[in-house]
Amino acid sequence: MDSLKVALLGCGVVGGEVARQLTVHADDLAARIGRPLELAGIAVRRAGRDRSDLPVDSALFTTDAMGLVTRGDIDIVVEVIGGIEPARSLILAALEAEASVVSANKALLAEDGAALFAAAEKYGGDLYYEAAVAGAIPILRPLRESLVGDRVRRVLGIVNGTTNYILTRMTESGAGFAEALEEAQALGYAEADPTADVEGFDAAAKAAILAGLAFHTRVTAADVHREGITDVTSADIASAREMGCVVKLLAIAELSDDGESVGVRAHPAMIPLTHPLAGVREAFNAVYVECEAAGGLMFYGQGAGGAPTASAVLGDVVAVARHRVNGGRGPGESAYANVRLRPMGETRTRYHVSLDVADRAGVLAQVATAFSEHGVSIETVRQAKHGSDDAELVIVTHHADDAALSDTVEAVRQLDVVRGVLSVMRVEGQ
Amino acid sequence: MDSLKVALLGCGVVGGEVARQLTVHADDLAARIGRPLELAGIAVRRAGRDRSDLPVDSALFTTDAMGLVTRGDIDIVVEVIGGIEPARSLILAALEAEASVVSANKALLAEDGAALFAAAEKYGGDLYYEAAVAGAIPILRPLRESLVGDRVRRVLGIVNGTTNYILTRMTESGAGFAEALEEAQALGYAEADPTADVEGFDAAAKAAILAGLAFHTRVTAADVHREGITDVTSADIASAREMGCVVKLLAIAELSDDGESVGVRAHPAMIPLTHPLAGVREAFNAVYVECEAAGGLMFYGQGAGGAPTASAVLGDVVAVARHRVNGGRGPGESAYANVRLRPMGETRTRYHVSLDVADRAGVLAQVATAFSEHGVSIETVRQAKHGSDDAELVIVTHHADDAALSDTVEAVRQLDVVRGVLSVMRVEGQ
Repeated sequence: MDSLKVALLGCGVVGGEVARQLTVHADDLAARIGRPLELAGIAVRRAGRDRSDLPVDSALFTTDAMGLVTRGDIDIVVEVIGGIEPARSLILAALEAEASVVSANKALLAEDGAALFAAAEKYGGDLYYEAAVAGAIPILRPLRESLVGDRVRRVLGIVNGTTNYILTRMTESGAGFAEALEEAQALGYAEADPTADVEGFDAAAKAAILAGLAFHTRVTAADVHREGITDVTSADIASAREMGCVVKLLAIAELSDDGESVGVRAHPAMIPLTHPLAGVREAFNAVYVECEAAGGLMFYGQGAGGAPTASAVLGDVVAVARHRVNGGRGPGESAYANVRLRPMGETRTRYHVSLDVADRAGVLAQVATAFSEHGVSIETVRQAKHGSDDAELVIVTHHADDAALSDTVEAVRQLDVVRGVLSVMRVEGQ
Repeated sequence: MDSLKVALLGCGVVGGEVARQLTVHADDLAARIGRPLELAGIAVRRAGRDRSDLPVDSALFTTDAMGLVTRGDIDIVVEVIGGIEPARSLILAALEAEASVVSANKALLAEDGAALFAAAEKYGGDLYYEAAVAGAIPILRPLRESLVGDRVRRVLGIVNGTTNYILTRMTESGAGFAEALEEAQALGYAEADPTADVEGFDAAAKAAILAGLAFHTRVTAADVHREGITDVTSADIASAREMGCVVKLLAIAELSDDGESVGVRAHPAMIPLTHPLAGVREAFNAVYVECEAAGGLMFYGQGAGGAPTASAVLGDVVAVARHRVNGGRGPGESAYANVRLRPMGETRTRYHVSLDVADRAGVLAQVATAFSEHGVSIETVRQAKHGSDDAELVIVTHHADDAALSDTVEAVRQLDVVRGVLSVMRVEGQ
C-alpha cells in the first residue's frame, strides 16, 4: 500500500513531538487511516542541531522548507513554525502543490485565514488547524461540525494558559501581577518576552478564529477589541472575591440579541464562581459555548505544550489523510452569514466599579446621578466603611453600551467626592 | 438546486424538535451544507395525533415508516424512535436504499452497531450517532476524529442525567434514594419506570459505545459490567463526603497498564472533589477522557432533552449532507485493535469499605489480616468511635483485582468482630 507523504515544517517543542508520535504510533495511525504515513522531510531553520533524541532518520532534515513543500509528492504539510512569514508562503505553496495542510498557527489563521481557505478551495485540499486554539482541546471541529446544526449565541473562552496561570496565582496566593509573572516564567508557563500573552494578543487571535467559526463570518485579529492583564491589580482580585467572582482573561464572541451583529473581544473580566469557567485553574484552558438548542457546553483541557498540541495536530493529520484515502474534503471557510462586527463601544456589557469616596452625605446621590446621566442603570451598590473619612462604593451595573459605561467611569472620576477609582472591570458569564 | 430529502422516523420530544429546527433554520442549514434540506416525511406510530404545534405540513406524517425509508428518493434518514425493533430493520433498509443514517439510538448501537456499520460500508452510506451518548455534548466526533491521532487511556463519563440528578439531591439535600427518585420523576428527569436509568442499563450502553470508539474495538452492552444506584445509601454518601469525595454513576472504559486489555463498566463510584467530574451537578452530563498525549480533557453539557438532543442530531445531519454534496464519507467502524475485553473480576480497582465493628483490641488486626490474605493492600484506615461499644472502621485500598476486593469484603463480613458492612464502593478518578 502506498504511503501518504508528510512534510513537517518546524521541529521545535511541538514539531519534535509530532515527528516522534508519527514514528512511534505509525502502526496505529496506518490502521486508523487505511494507509501508512511516511515522514518525508522535516524543515528546520538551523541545520546541524543535535536532534538525535528524535526517532527519525537524520537525512530527513532540511533547511529548504520551500523545496520540501513543492517537491511534488507531498500529500500532507504540517506547519508548526508559527508567525506570519514564511509560514504563509509555505502553506500557500503547499496548497498550490495540491497537498492538504495542517497548521497550529493561530496568528496566521487570525490574520489571513481567508486567503488560505481560498487557496485550499481553489486547489482542492484540506486546511485544518485544531491546534491553533486551546491546544489539545477539540473545539474547532465541534464548532465546524458538531454544532453546525445549531445556532451559537456566545463563546467564552479561557484560551491562554500563561495569563490563566498568572491570574490563578494572583487569586490564590495573593501575589501581584509582576510576582505571578515571574513565577510563571520560572515554571516555563510564560516566555521571556511575555507580551503576546499578557497583552492579550494571543487570546485575541484565538477569539477571532472562534468567532469566525461560531458565526460563519470572517473575523480577523484586527477586528477584536483587546485588553491585556498587565493592569489587573490585587484590588481587582479582591473586589472580584467580594462579589463571589474570579478574574479571568476571556476571549468572547457574542451575537447581539437581535442576531444582527457580533462583538469579539479579549479582556480580563469577572465571572461568578458558579460559572463552569470559574473552576478552570492554572495553565488549563476551557471554552464555554452557549447554543440556542444545545444550551451551555464546556470543553476543558490542556491548552499548550508539545504533546497536547501534537495530539491536536495528529488528529487533523488523520482527518485529512482519510480524505486522501476515501475521497471527500473537510469543511472549507464558512462565511456566508457575514454578520456585522460591532465596535466595542456598541457592545452590551456590565461594569463592576469600585470607588474610593469621601464618607459624607450625598456622595451616593452624586455618583448615581453621573451613572443615570449616561443612561447606565445600576444593579447593585454596596458601601463599605474604609478609613476615618473614607468609604468604598462598589457598583455593579446592568447591561449598557460599553462606550456609555466607559464614559460614565470617566465622569465619576472627575467628581470632587470621588478620591479614586479603585477597580473597573467588566462582568461576564451571567 | 436540488434539495436533499430527509425522512424523520419518530416524532416525540426529540423528533418534534428536529422537525421544528429543520424548518425554522432551513436557510442557515442550506448555507452550511451547500444545498437545501427538505423534510420528505415523518413516520409516527399513531396517525391522527394533533401535531399542529409543529411548523410542518400535516401531509408529511405517515405510519408507514418502512415505506418512507424505501421509497427510493430519500438521502438522509433520521432515526429517533429508540429501542431495538423496528429501529434496526428501518436503519438497515435505509442504508440498503443508499441513504445515510443519523441515529440517536444508544441501545441499538450498543447491541448491534457492527451490523449497522457493515451495512453502511456495503452500501456506501454514512452512519452517525452523536446524540446517542451525552445528548448535546460533542463527544463521539471528538473520539472518532479529533483524538484519533492520540491514544486514549481511560474514559470516565457521567452519561445519565437521571441518576446524576438523584445522586446530586442525595448529596446536597440529604434525601434518600427513594425520595430523590420521586423528586426526579416530579421534575420530569426520571421516567415512571426508571429501571433503564437507575439500574445502569442506559449508562452501560453508552459505556459500550464510548469504549468501542476510544479503543478501536468492538464492544457491546453485554460486555459491560453494570451496577445501578438503587443500593446507594445515605451512609455511602456520608462516607464519600468524609473522604473528600462525591458519589457518581460512572461509565468507565479503560485500557490496562500494559495496553493488552480493556475493561468496560458502569457503576456508582466515589471520585475526589478535586476531579473535574465532581462538579457536574443535577442532570448535566460530562465525559472525561485521558489521553497519552493530550492529557485529561472534559466535555460538559446537557445530556438529554428535546432541543439539546436535536442539536446533536442536526450536527450529524449537516455532516452527512455535506458528504452527499461534496463527496466522501465519514469514518466507519474502527475495530482493528480488537483489544481483549477483560472481565470485571480482573479489572484493577480500589475499594472504599466502611465497617461497623466491635470496639475492642485486635479488631483492626483481624480485619487487616483478611485483606492481606486476599492480597489486597490497604492504603488508609480511619477508626471512628460510634456508640458505647461500637466503632466504625473506614478502609481505602490500593488497586487490586476487583474479584479479590469483592472476596475480601465477603471474608470481612464473616468475621465475628464485624457487625455489619456499612458501605462498599469503588474509588475512581485518582
